[in-house]
Amino acid sequence: MASFEASSRDEGEGSNQTSLKTVRESLIRQEDSIVFSLIERARHPYNAAAYDNSSLKSSGCSLAEIFVREAEHLHAKAGRYDNPEEVPFFSEDLPLPLLPPYNYPQVLHPVAASVNITKTIWNMYFNELLPILTTKGDDGNYASTLALDLACLQALSRRIHYGKYVAEVKFRDAPMDYSSAIHDKDREALMRMLTFERVEEMVKQRVAKKAMVFGQQVTLEEDNWSGDTLNYKVDPTLVSRLYSDWIIPLTKVVEVEYLLRRLD
Amino acid sequence: MASFEASSRDEGEGSNQTSLKTVRESLIRQEDSIVFSLIERARHPYNAAAYDNSSLKSSGCSLAEIFVREAEHLHAKAGRYDNPEEVPFFSEDLPLPLLPPYNYPQVLHPVAASVNITKTIWNMYFNELLPILTTKGDDGNYASTLALDLACLQALSRRIHYGKYVAEVKFRDAPMDYSSAIHDKDREALMRMLTFERVEEMVKQRVAKKAMVFGQQVTLEEDNWSGDTLNYKVDPTLVSRLYSDWIIPLTKVVEVEYLLRRLD
Repeated sequence: MASFEASSRDEGEGSNQTSLKTVRESLIRQEDSIVFSLIERARHPYNAAAYDNSSLKSSGCSLAEIFVREAEHLHAKAGRYDNPEEVPFFSEDLPLPLLPPYNYPQVLHPVAASVNITKTIWNMYFNELLPILTTKGDDGNYASTLALDLACLQALSRRIHYGKYVAEVKFRDAPMDYSSAIHDKDREALMRMLTFERVEEMVKQRVAKKAMVFGQQVTLEEDNWSGDTLNYKVDPTLVSRLYSDWIIPLTKVVEVEYLLRRLD
Repeated sequence: MASFEASSRDEGEGSNQTSLKTVRESLIRQEDSIVFSLIERARHPYNAAAYDNSSLKSSGCSLAEIFVREAEHLHAKAGRYDNPEEVPFFSEDLPLPLLPPYNYPQVLHPVAASVNITKTIWNMYFNELLPILTTKGDDGNYASTLALDLACLQALSRRIHYGKYVAEVKFRDAPMDYSSAIHDKDREALMRMLTFERVEEMVKQRVAKKAMVFGQQVTLEEDNWSGDTLNYKVDPTLVSRLYSDWIIPLTKVVEVEYLLRRLD
């Protein structure tokens, strides 16, 4: 989470060092996955038929919803939701994994399982992000399109719900400071404690740079750093805005919700 | 296809210009998708349990096979295989698409549907590429791992079977030259006509550069072009080798098989 990285209080804390380093590295690596998934989705136009609730008369829902539900069913069989980092969009009636459970480290308080903002992420992605990420049009590749939507949704959901880990390491770093705000159910105080504007600004700049680097047209002949934004596969300012308007605020919502239940 | 791009005979041909340009652009753009998918898969270690035929006693096949079969079933419902560029690994009993068919342009000769080297691609990917792409180990994320395997397999299969389009535009460009070799069933002559070593060398260099650009650690602070290969998420020489040893030769196999049936 943006406001977490490099906040000075977090540095040099002995016992918490490993998980702190792990959380930070994971957040930075997840940025790459988010940028890759957006670039890949932007290969295809919007493809409205995939999102139209009236296209499939018998079901009453969109092909997108059917696709994500059935894909999550398959992912559940392969054990995806055994990992507390993963949160399904449709958690009803998921099958049990086919392989024996993997022993994931138990880092979080058990209340973590109840913190879930997938509905908000779903609406943000389909109603706000996708229409500005893609060009208008229909190339017919609904399956590819929806598979790439799923990759984007999963990358965004993992990143935003990773706020639970961010909150946990912050809590462990300063349990007294957080406990009083938690006891008072003071969301605003928690939000203030979790916000580091300078760090958020740095994250926004870094993801825009990643969009430029990963979204450039690479050729052997010329210098790729043309500075021409028309050549980027995804507009870097859109990626920066995705972080500032949605990912960073929603991660903090997850952090606050987790912390409010951290002492239950 | 490597040997296709910028071969001088292809240039300046009037009627064939659009599809030629489209084919070339698609091949270059597909390189990016292949590199992205390899980088993403390399985030996880090998995760052997997903590929072990004995892990799931009841089924007798690996979780990987179950995952790809069921994912292709879902993709078929979303119409993936209506697009002649897409070839399923398991074509038996695929369901019909839920949406009405999209009107894809009919570029290929109908025999294209019978040219299918997915078994070769499957074995190459799981037996040869994956063990050197990934580190040893098991992080338990089998669903994520297999979803990324599927993305790699689909990107490789699309690229290699795109040889049909390459062969078609080459054939249209010089039908007389190809027809005599086709009538003689002369695979070696066809292979010679389809091979441009200088162009293949250029493709290998470009994909290695893409692996460097897309696989670098992007930070705000420093120059990312450290030249330290240990920092790349996937070894650029591996990507270059993937093209020289597998993608380029297998694409030419597809081209030859397609051409041999082109006059049926």
